Amino acid sequence: MKLHFSKMHGLGNDYIYVNCLEHKLKHPEEVARIVSDRHFGVGSDGLILICPSDRADFEMRMFNADGSEGKMCGNAIRCVGKYVYDRGFTDRKTLQIDTRSGVKTLELTLEDGKVSTVRVDMGRASLRARDIPVETDYDDFVSQPMLVHGEVFLVTCVSMGNPHAVIFCDDVEDLPLEDIGPLFENHEKFPDRINTEFIELVDRQTLKMRVWERGSGETFACGTGACAAVVAAVVNGHCDAGDEVTVRLRGGELKITCREDFTVLMEGPAAHVFDGVMEIDL
Amino acid sequence: MKLHFSKMHGLGNDYIYVNCLEHKLKHPEEVARIVSDRHFGVGSDGLILICPSDRADFEMRMFNADGSEGKMCGNAIRCVGKYVYDRGFTDRKTLQIDTRSGVKTLELTLEDGKVSTVRVDMGRASLRARDIPVETDYDDFVSQPMLVHGEVFLVTCVSMGNPHAVIFCDDVEDLPLEDIGPLFENHEKFPDRINTEFIELVDRQTLKMRVWERGSGETFACGTGACAAVVAAVVNGHCDAGDEVTVRLRGGELKITCREDFTVLMEGPAAHVFDGVMEIDL
Repeated sequence: MKLHFSKMHGLGNDYIYVNCLEHKLKHPEEVARIVSDRHFGVGSDGLILICPSDRADFEMRMFNADGSEGKMCGNAIRCVGKYVYDRGFTDRKTLQIDTRSGVKTLELTLEDGKVSTVRVDMGRASLRARDIPVETDYDDFVSQPMLVHGEVFLVTCVSMGNPHAVIFCDDVEDLPLEDIGPLFENHEKFPDRINTEFIELVDRQTLKMRVWERGSGETFACGTGACAAVVAAVVNGHCDAGDEVTVRLRGGELKITCREDFTVLMEGPAAHVFDGVMEIDL
Repeated sequence: MKLHFSKMHGLGNDYIYVNCLEHKLKHPEEVARIVSDRHFGVGSDGLILICPSDRADFEMRMFNADGSEGKMCGNAIRCVGKYVYDRGFTDRKTLQIDTRSGVKTLELTLEDGKVSTVRVDMGRASLRARDIPVETDYDDFVSQPMLVHGEVFLVTCVSMGNPHAVIFCDDVEDLPLEDIGPLFENHEKFPDRINTEFIELVDRQTLKMRVWERGSGETFACGTGACAAVVAAVVNGHCDAGDEVTVRLRGGELKITCREDFTVLMEGPAAHVFDGVMEIDL
């Protein structure tokens, strides 16, 4: 099978994008494993299929590097917006994209006729302990002390559809994330494991973040993690609801707005890297 | 600039290959850095240019992921053989390829009309301490004890144009390579640092190897390292000169022959992964 694909990334979170608008891709799980391998394949964090949809403009399906199907990725959905607009599959700048975690609305921003940044309505965050889930006697888990790695951390848990533990600290650069990250990820309080965000407050409109993603370790950027960080910052009084907050990640910046009702907007760049064609034996 | 390229690998040692037979590539150092990035670029161990040559059939130039120019790579030169034959730039199955470490002779083996494996005459190994270099009062450094990580290792040093320290041990799987590798790499005995090969003897024609490459850490395969390992095995009486020895690496197998005069032949696979085109702003 000849696979035509594009590699795109959002803040270094890179996927192989395949146009499935006219032809279905067979065996996407296996294709995801083959193409994602960074030495024997193309190399990516996974595979994104752009498909037709009955209830939205397009459907995005995502497969992780291990072949498992994911629900939604904030960095990838921005690239889907760029893909369909730049290639002329739509001329609309407001798009509905169906995902396994519901229909998401995208607002495209152009530069020289091509999409440069995309704003995504990420839906409503939840602070309910059972939504995350986190083991606690309380209804939520806000600024709760946890003893990890011999140190007490104040942890705020947020669900953006996936679970996040947000920790505010003085300096994220010098954090021994390789040591601490796995201890949070696998802590008994988090039955589904957890993504952990370490946040340095620069000012009321700027956060600096490092993230340890469950199953992946430290990554360049986590879109839902940046959203969770701003939600936690609003809840703890570090930022104001309705303000656009810049989150500086290793891979670049995202602009996040957490409204009073905890619905969250995320805006960030989407980049095309190259187009390729690969012969795959399946 | 529109860059047309192919990604190929030899045992997982992957490079971006660019045809420079008709057009020179400008700024190869910068292109190497851009394309090699595994999240923001194509992703590779570096860039290989296939160029015309006055004194050989073709010239291979290699640039590491950091943009520095390398001399020679045993895994990459096999892919160069596959590239020029499969694309019809030559119909000869014995080729001379010029490199920064001299002209190398390749023997191509075909399967269904395409190159499957390539045998490379890797030239003559040297055991001379000053060729490696290694600090010692002796002329060579064969089975010499070194205290590293609280343990005594018997080390044999071999130059294949680049420096290697070969260590025979009972079990390579359980080795804490992340801990030991850097201690050898940066040991004061090795002024140019060193590549370290840990070798398990399976039988007199089979070795199992893990490698810690200077500047790269553990890799899937190191062609010159596999050659150095067989040279060291012959010198220490574990293998016989003239025999074809299979070296099992993490990325696959190489077949190495060390002749009595310490000239070394290496045979292994070369694989094409995909073709791509990337717009680069330079």
